[in-house]
Amino acid sequence: MIERYSRAEMVKIWEPANKFKIWFEIEAHACDALAKQGVIPKKAAQAIWEKGNKEYTLERIRRIEAIEEETRHDVIAFLTELAEHIGDEARYVHKGMTSSDVLDTCMALQMKQSSDLILANINTLMCILRKRAEETKLTPIMGRSHGIHAEPLTMGLKFARYYKEFSRNQKRLLIAKDEISTCAISGAVGTFSSIDPKVEGYVASKLGLAPEPISTQIIPRDRHAYFFATLGVIASSVENLATEIRHMQRTEVREVQEYFSPNQKGSSAMPHKRNPILSENLTGLARLVRAAVIPALENVALWHERDISHSSVERVIAPDTLITLDFALVRLSKILEGLIILPNNMLTNLNAFRGIHDTQRVLLYLVEKGVSREKAYKIVQRNAMKVWESIEAGDMYKGHIDAPLERKVESITNKNCLTYFLTQDEELRELITVSELESLLNKESLSYYIKWVDFIFQRVFPK
Amino acid sequence: MIERYSRAEMVKIWEPANKFKIWFEIEAHACDALAKQGVIPKKAAQAIWEKGNKEYTLERIRRIEAIEEETRHDVIAFLTELAEHIGDEARYVHKGMTSSDVLDTCMALQMKQSSDLILANINTLMCILRKRAEETKLTPIMGRSHGIHAEPLTMGLKFARYYKEFSRNQKRLLIAKDEISTCAISGAVGTFSSIDPKVEGYVASKLGLAPEPISTQIIPRDRHAYFFATLGVIASSVENLATEIRHMQRTEVREVQEYFSPNQKGSSAMPHKRNPILSENLTGLARLVRAAVIPALENVALWHERDISHSSVERVIAPDTLITLDFALVRLSKILEGLIILPNNMLTNLNAFRGIHDTQRVLLYLVEKGVSREKAYKIVQRNAMKVWESIEAGDMYKGHIDAPLERKVESITNKNCLTYFLTQDEELRELITVSELESLLNKESLSYYIKWVDFIFQRVFPK
Amino acid sequence: MIERYSRAEMVKIWEPANKFKIWFEIEAHACDALAKQGVIPKKAAQAIWEKGNKEYTLERIRRIEAIEEETRHDVIAFLTELAEHIGDEARYVHKGMTSSDVLDTCMALQMKQSSDLILANINTLMCILRKRAEETKLTPIMGRSHGIHAEPLTMGLKFARYYKEFSRNQKRLLIAKDEISTCAISGAVGTFSSIDPKVEGYVASKLGLAPEPISTQIIPRDRHAYFFATLGVIASSVENLATEIRHMQRTEVREVQEYFSPNQKGSSAMPHKRNPILSENLTGLARLVRAAVIPALENVALWHERDISHSSVERVIAPDTLITLDFALVRLSKILEGLIILPNNMLTNLNAFRGIHDTQRVLLYLVEKGVSREKAYKIVQRNAMKVWESIEAGDMYKGHIDAPLERKVESITNKNCLTYFLTQDEELRELITVSELESLLNKESLSYYIKWVDFIFQRVFPK
Amino acid sequence: MIERYSRAEMVKIWEPANKFKIWFEIEAHACDALAKQGVIPKKAAQAIWEKGNKEYTLERIRRIEAIEEETRHDVIAFLTELAEHIGDEARYVHKGMTSSDVLDTCMALQMKQSSDLILANINTLMCILRKRAEETKLTPIMGRSHGIHAEPLTMGLKFARYYKEFSRNQKRLLIAKDEISTCAISGAVGTFSSIDPKVEGYVASKLGLAPEPISTQIIPRDRHAYFFATLGVIASSVENLATEIRHMQRTEVREVQEYFSPNQKGSSAMPHKRNPILSENLTGLARLVRAAVIPALENVALWHERDISHSSVERVIAPDTLITLDFALVRLSKILEGLIILPNNMLTNLNAFRGIHDTQRVLLYLVEKGVSREKAYKIVQRNAMKVWESIEAGDMYKGHIDAPLERKVESITNKNCLTYFLTQDEELRELITVSELESLLNKESLSYYIKWVDFIFQRVFPK
Repeated sequence: MIERYSRAEMVKIWEPANKFKIWFEIEAHACDALAKQGVIPKKAAQAIWEKGNKEYTLERIRRIEAIEEETRHDVIAFLTELAEHIGDEARYVHKGMTSSDVLDTCMALQMKQSSDLILANINTLMCILRKRAEETKLTPIMGRSHGIHAEPLTMGLKFARYYKEFSRNQKRLLIAKDEISTCAISGAVGTFSSIDPKVEGYVASKLGLAPEPISTQIIPRDRHAYFFATLGVIASSVENLATEIRHMQRTEVREVQEYFSPNQKGSSAMPHKRNPILSENLTGLARLVRAAVIPALENVALWHERDISHSSVERVIAPDTLITLDFALVRLSKILEGLIILPNNMLTNLNAFRGIHDTQRVLLYLVEKGVSREKAYKIVQRNAMKVWESIEAGDMYKGHIDAPLERKVESITNKNCLTYFLTQDEELRELITVSELESLLNKESLSYYIKWVDFIFQRVFPK
Repeated sequence: MIERYSRAEMVKIWEPANKFKIWFEIEAHACDALAKQGVIPKKAAQAIWEKGNKEYTLERIRRIEAIEEETRHDVIAFLTELAEHIGDEARYVHKGMTSSDVLDTCMALQMKQSSDLILANINTLMCILRKRAEETKLTPIMGRSHGIHAEPLTMGLKFARYYKEFSRNQKRLLIAKDEISTCAISGAVGTFSSIDPKVEGYVASKLGLAPEPISTQIIPRDRHAYFFATLGVIASSVENLATEIRHMQRTEVREVQEYFSPNQKGSSAMPHKRNPILSENLTGLARLVRAAVIPALENVALWHERDISHSSVERVIAPDTLITLDFALVRLSKILEGLIILPNNMLTNLNAFRGIHDTQRVLLYLVEKGVSREKAYKIVQRNAMKVWESIEAGDMYKGHIDAPLERKVESITNKNCLTYFLTQDEELRELITVSELESLLNKESLSYYIKWVDFIFQRVFPK
Repeated sequence: MIERYSRAEMVKIWEPANKFKIWFEIEAHACDALAKQGVIPKKAAQAIWEKGNKEYTLERIRRIEAIEEETRHDVIAFLTELAEHIGDEARYVHKGMTSSDVLDTCMALQMKQSSDLILANINTLMCILRKRAEETKLTPIMGRSHGIHAEPLTMGLKFARYYKEFSRNQKRLLIAKDEISTCAISGAVGTFSSIDPKVEGYVASKLGLAPEPISTQIIPRDRHAYFFATLGVIASSVENLATEIRHMQRTEVREVQEYFSPNQKGSSAMPHKRNPILSENLTGLARLVRAAVIPALENVALWHERDISHSSVERVIAPDTLITLDFALVRLSKILEGLIILPNNMLTNLNAFRGIHDTQRVLLYLVEKGVSREKAYKIVQRNAMKVWESIEAGDMYKGHIDAPLERKVESITNKNCLTYFLTQDEELRELITVSELESLLNKESLSYYIKWVDFIFQRVFPK
Repeated sequence: MIERYSRAEMVKIWEPANKFKIWFEIEAHACDALAKQGVIPKKAAQAIWEKGNKEYTLERIRRIEAIEEETRHDVIAFLTELAEHIGDEARYVHKGMTSSDVLDTCMALQMKQSSDLILANINTLMCILRKRAEETKLTPIMGRSHGIHAEPLTMGLKFARYYKEFSRNQKRLLIAKDEISTCAISGAVGTFSSIDPKVEGYVASKLGLAPEPISTQIIPRDRHAYFFATLGVIASSVENLATEIRHMQRTEVREVQEYFSPNQKGSSAMPHKRNPILSENLTGLARLVRAAVIPALENVALWHERDISHSSVERVIAPDTLITLDFALVRLSKILEGLIILPNNMLTNLNAFRGIHDTQRVLLYLVEKGVSREKAYKIVQRNAMKVWESIEAGDMYKGHIDAPLERKVESITNKNCLTYFLTQDEELRELITVSELESLLNKESLSYYIKWVDFIFQRVFPK
C-alpha cells in the first residue's frame, strides 16, 4: 500500500488505533461472558470496560510497541499496556484465551468492515454504470472481436455488461464476506480447554460475527484464501473495464475520453498529450490485487494446529489489497462518471469499413434462399475481402468522409462498399437480384443489429 | 495433464468425442428452436437429429481435424464434416449463430459435468473424513503450533476440521458450478442480431444451463476466473491435509502411515524406506491446480467484444486442472481410507515432554488464586524451561520409557517432569501447596483437554 | 501440453523413449566408471552396453509400466526390465546409486536438449527480426505512448527493439541452461556413501554436464526455479511482441496484418473477418508458460534432504512449458516472416492528427528563445488541444484525405492543423513570427524524428 | 512494505528524498552534457548545480506534492519546484528529455543501490553459513528424504549446501543487477528526436550505469521482470533454509533451536513455548517477495512505445520487494548466527531406528557377493520392515535409551535392531555368515557415510 493509492476511510480500518480498539472489545466482551458464567467477578468485567475503554492514542500505541520490543509478542504487549490502565483486575483479561483468538477475530472484523466499504464502492459503480448504460442505450458503436470490426452494437450494451459483471462480483463478495466473518475464542489448539465455548458465542454475537464451528489455534485459512481469491476476481473485472476504456481512447479509435482537468499535464515533453492514465493505472493496480491470491492460497496449508508463516503475509496483503482495491473501485467510478462519450467518432468508425460488417446478413439470406452454407460463405468472403483490400490501399477513411455528422450506415453507397462488390459478383447475381441485395442491406441496417437491446436491458437491470 | 495423474471418468468429459457430441446437441437443439419459430423447416430439424446424431468415432474426429488443417477454424471444420452426414439440410445448421455460441456453451457444460464429478469426490472424501473422525474421536494426540508441542487434542478433531474445510469447499464449488453453468447463443457480438433469444432459452433449458443474461461474442470470463479460483482454494485444502499427513508420518513423529502395499518399494537404494509419497504427490498436484488461477484471472480482461487470448489458456487449463484435481481428491480419499493410525505413538509423543503442556492450567490456576498474570507467567515459564532444558541434554524420551503401552498422562511422575520442577520452585510454594498442584495436574489431565469434543462434533457434523 | 500447441522435435525429447535411453546411458556410463575403479568387473560393464543398449520400443515401455504398476517405483521398474535383457550382470547396474541420481541427471539433460532447441528458435527469430528491421528501417510510423500518438519513429526501430529484447533472452537462457546442466550421482543423501565421486565426474563428462558441487538426494531446485523463471521472462517477451502486432492489426490502426491463407476462415458467422488469431494465441500461450514460474519457485523449499512434492509438478511443467514455449517461438517467427506491412496506412495514421505530435519541437524552440518552460508549455498545450478538440468533432481523418499515397508530413497545411492554430495565438505571435514557426515545423519534419536511426541500429545490431 | 519488516538502510533508498536527489542529479548531469555540446549555456549548467543541489527536505517534498496535486504529473511538479530555486536558468532543465528518462534512470539507480545492499547481505549470510558449516563439519545427523530417515550425513553438509545455493543466488543477482543498471535519455519515443545521444552516454557514465541500447519512451520491462524473477528465486532459497530450521526445531526432532531471548514470550497462553517464529516469519516473507514475480512479468507487454500500467505496480513492488528481501536476509543471518545446535539430539535421532539406515550397505554387499539385486532387495527389505514394525509397537525410542550421550551407532546391539533381524533370516544366513554381517555393520558405521565430507567441502568452499 502506498499513500498515493489509498483512501482514508479504508486506511483507518487497518490502523493500529482501530486494531487495538477491536482487541480491547474482544477481551472486554469475553470478560462479560466469563462474568456471566461466574468464572470471573462481575465487578472485574465492569472495571475492564470502565478503565480500559479509552481511545488508542499515538502515545498508547508507542507504549505497546515498546513493550513488544522486549517481549517479542504483540498480544502480550497489548495486555501489559492495558493492565497499566486497569490495575489489579487486569489479571482476569484474556483468561483461557490464546493470542490468536484475539488476532484472528480482529482480522475477521477488519475484513468484514473492509468488505462493507468495497461493497458500497461496487454499489456506487453499478449505479454509475446503469446511468451511463441508459444514457447510451441506443448509441451505435462497432462491435469488435480480435480487435477487428465485427457487427455493431450499442455503447449502452457495453456499460450494461460491466454492470452485470459487477453485480456478479457483488454477490461473490457478499459470499466471501460471510465466509470470513467468524469469531474463534477456542484456546491454544481449538479445544476450549480453558474457556467455555459460550464465551465465543457471546463475543461473536456482540461483534456481528458467527462462531467458527471448528478452529485450531486459528481460524482456518481456506476462508482467507477464498476471500483474497474473490478480490482477485473483482480486480480482474476492474482491469477488464479499464482495458476497454484504454482501447476506446486510443488515438485511432477515440470513442471515449477520460476527463482531463484544465491544469492537468499529459506529458512533460509533449504538451499535446491526453492520456488515459487513470485507466492504465487501474490495470496496474489490478495486477497488485491479483498478486495476493497466490500467497493467500499458499497460506492454507499450515503445520498441524497452526504455524505462523501466514502472519507476515497477511499483515501485508490484508491492508494492502483491500486499500488498493477500494482505491481502484472509487477511481473507476470517477472515471466512468466523467467519461466523455464521443458518439460521432463511434459512428465514423462504425462506417469506416463500408458495410463489411453486413456479411453475415448476406450469408444467412443466401442460406435461406437454398444456397449451401459453404458456397454462400465463399461468395460473401471473397467480396468482403475486396472491400478489405481496397482499404489496405491506404484510403481507409474515404467512404464516409463527406457525410454530415449525423450520417447513418444506410448512406454508404460509394463504389468501394460491400454492396457494390456484391452486386458485381457474377455467381451471386445468378442467385439473387441487385435490388434484393440493396433492399436487404440498405434498409434500417443499424436497427437490424440493435433490435434486442430492450430485451437485454430487461434481463440485466432489475426493476 | 498426464496420464499418470488422471482418471478415465474425468478424461472422458474432455475428449473430442464428448466435445463434438455436445456441439452437435447444441446445434440440433438450436435447430429445433428455430423450427418452432418457423425460421427453418421442421423437417430439416428432424433430419439433423436423424442423420447427424451419431457417435463421434476416431474416424470422424480425424476427418474434422483434416478439415480444420485447411480452414484453420474448428467450428467450421465440425460443421463441414457434419454436413457430409446430413446433406442438403445442413445449411440450416448454425443459422444465425457464431462459433463461440457453440464453444462457450459446450465448455460450460463440460465444466458443469466436471464439477459434478468433483462434487462427488468431495462427498466421498467427507464421508471418509467423518468415519475416521468418529473412529478417533477420543484418540489423544499432542496439538502443535509452530511445530512445537502446545496442548493435547484428539485425532478425531483433526479429521473433523478437514471435514468442515471440505464442506466449505463443497459449498464454494456448488456456487462456482452454478455461476459457470450458462448458455450463450447470442450471435457475433451478443446482440442476437441474426437469432432470436428464444433459441438461447430453449437450448439452455435442454442442456440444464441458464441463459447468459448478457454476453458479447462470448460468455464473460469473470465466471471462469471465479471457477478456477475456487478450484485453487480446493487444491490448497488438499495440500493442507496432505501436509498434515506428511508431518505425522515423518520418522520422529510416526503417528500415522500411508498404506504401503506388500510389493511396493520405497527407494531403489534403501530397502527400509516407507515414504508418504502419495501425500507428497498431492502437495505437488495442488501447486499445479493453483497455477491455473493467475492465467484464469488474466483471461478476464479481453479486448472489446472478445479477443481470443483466453482460448489457448482454457484449452489447457480447463481439462488439466479439472483432471488433476479430480485425481488428487480421489487419491486423497484413498490415502485417508487406508491411513494407518498409530495411537500408541501419539500417546508416546504426547508424553514425551513430561507434562510441559500443562503450563496454561497452572497459569490460569494462579491467576484465579489472585496472582497477577505477569507474575504467574514468569513462574510457570521458568519451570517449563527447566523441563525443556533437561530434555535438551539429550535424554528427551526418558520420561516414559518404562511405561506400559497403555500408559496415561497421569503416570508421569519422574523428577524431570513439570510437576517436579514446579514443586521445587520456592516462589510458587509460597502461593500454592504441593498437594494443590499435584491434584491440579495429575487428575484426569487428558480429559481436561478433550471435554468439549462432543460439543465440537455436534457443531461440525450434521445429524 | 496439447498436440495443437506442440512440435514433434520438442515432444520427442520428453517422450518415454528418450527418457529411458538417457536413463540407460547414465547407468551404463556409471558402470564403465565403476569398472575402471575395479568395483565391478569390466566384462559386466561391457555386457551392459552390449545387451542393454537397444531402442526403447513401445513394447519395452509398456513392460516397464506394468512393472511400475506393482512396485510403485519407476526406476526400479526400469531396472527390472533392463535386467531381463542383460541377465546376471544386471546386478551391477545402479550399484551405489539412488533413483534420483538417474532421474535428476536425466531431467538435466532433457532440459539442456530443450534449451538448445529454444535457443535455436530464438536465433531464428532474431534473424527474422533483423531482416524485417532492415527492410523497414526508415518506414515512418507514429510512436504511441498510452495508446495516444506521441512522436514518429520507424517500423524498423520497433523490430530492432524486439531483436534486442530477444538477444537479452538468448543470453538469459544460456545462463539458465548452464545452471541446469549438472549431473548428480551422489547416492541416497548426497554423501557418496556407496559410490565414488569419480563416477559422477565420469558420467557428467560423457553427457556434457557439470558435476553438481553439492547435492542432497537430488539436485537443488533453485536451479530449476531459475530456469523456469527465465522461461517466464521469455514468454513475456513473446507476449510483448504479440501484443504489438495485435494492436497494429486492429481495424482502426491496420498497419500490419498477419498472413491469411487463401482457404482460411476468420469467423463462422462473419465471412469478412481477418483476425490476428496467431498473435492472440501467443498471448495466451505466454500466460501458460508464466504459470509454471510460481510452482517452480514453490518447489525450491523441500524438506530436509528432499521431499518428492516437486516431482509431480516437474513431470507436468518441464515438458509442457518447454513444448509450449518452443511452439510459441516458432509460431512467432512464422508470423513475423509472413507479416504484411502496410506503410501507407502507417503514414495515414501518422498524419491523422495534423502535426499535433510536433508540440515538443515548438516547446523547445520557445525555451531556446528565452521563454520559460512553464509559459511555453501552456501556449503549446492550449493550441494542441484545439487541434484535438476539432478532431473530436468527428472529422478526424479529414486532414489528409485527398493527399496522394506518398503524401508527407510537410503537406499538412489545412486550417485545423497545429501550425494553423499556433499562428493564430496572439501571445505566441508576440514571441515568434509566423514564418519562423512555419520554417520550424514544415521543413523535413519527419527527418527530425528519425535522424538517429542509424546510430541506434549500430548499437543494436552486431557487425 | 510495513515498518515491522524493514531496515532503515534499504528504506532510505526508496524515500522521496533519495528519489528527488537522483532526479536532480540526472537533470543536472544532462545539463552539463548539453552545455558541453553548446546546446545550453555553460553558465546555466553551473547555476543549476549551484542553486539546485540542495537536500530534499520534508518541506520541499510537501511543496512538490502540492504542485503534483494540480498538474497530476510528478516530474512536472518536481521541475516546477526546482525552478523556484534556480530561477530563470531553470528553463534549460529537462531540455529535450521526457519524464521517463528521469523516472526510469532513477529507478535503475535505486535498484542498483538496492542490489548492492542485498549482495552485501548475501555475502554476510554466506560467511555465517561457512562458519557454521566448518563448526559442524563432522557433526553427524540423520539424513531424511520424504521426512523419513534415509542415511546419515553431517550438519556441516547442510550448511554447506545452503552456502552453495546462496553463492548461486549471488551470481544471479549480479547478473540481474547488471541487466537493470541502464540509463535511458532518449526522449519521447526513444528516437533522441530532441536530444543528442551523447547526453545519455554522459549521464550514464556519471551515474555508473550503461546506456540503454534501444529504448522506447521507457527502458524495456523485460529487464525488470528478470530482476524481480531473480529476487523470487532468492526468496525461495530463504524459504528453503527457513523450512529446514523449522523442521529441525519441531519438538519431536529438536536438533536446532532459534535463539530465544530471556524476556521473550512464546505464547500468551502457554508459558512453555519456544517457537521458531523467525524462520516461520521468513517463510511468509518469501511468499511476499515471490508475489511480485507475476506482476513484474505482466508488466513486460506494454502497448506500443509504452503504456503506464507498469508504473503503479513498480511503485509498490520495487520498494516493497527489495525492503522485504533485505529484511529477510538480515534476519536469516541473525537466526543462523544465534542458532543453537543440539548435537546430542541429532545423535539420538540418528540412532532411534536401530541401524535401519544401513540397509543399502547390506544390499550392496549381497550384490557384490553375487546375489541378484532383486533377491537381495527383498531380503533386506523384509528385515528392515521388522525393525520398522517393532517400532510401530510404541517403543520407538527404546534401543538407545541407556546409552551414554556419546553413544555411537556401533553400540546398538539389542535384539530389535537391524543386525539382529538379519542374523535371524534363514535365507540370508545361507548367503553370508553372522560374523560377516556384524563386521560389515558394526565397524565404523558412521565413518562409512561421511568419508567424502572433506571432498565435498573442497568443492563447495573456495580457498
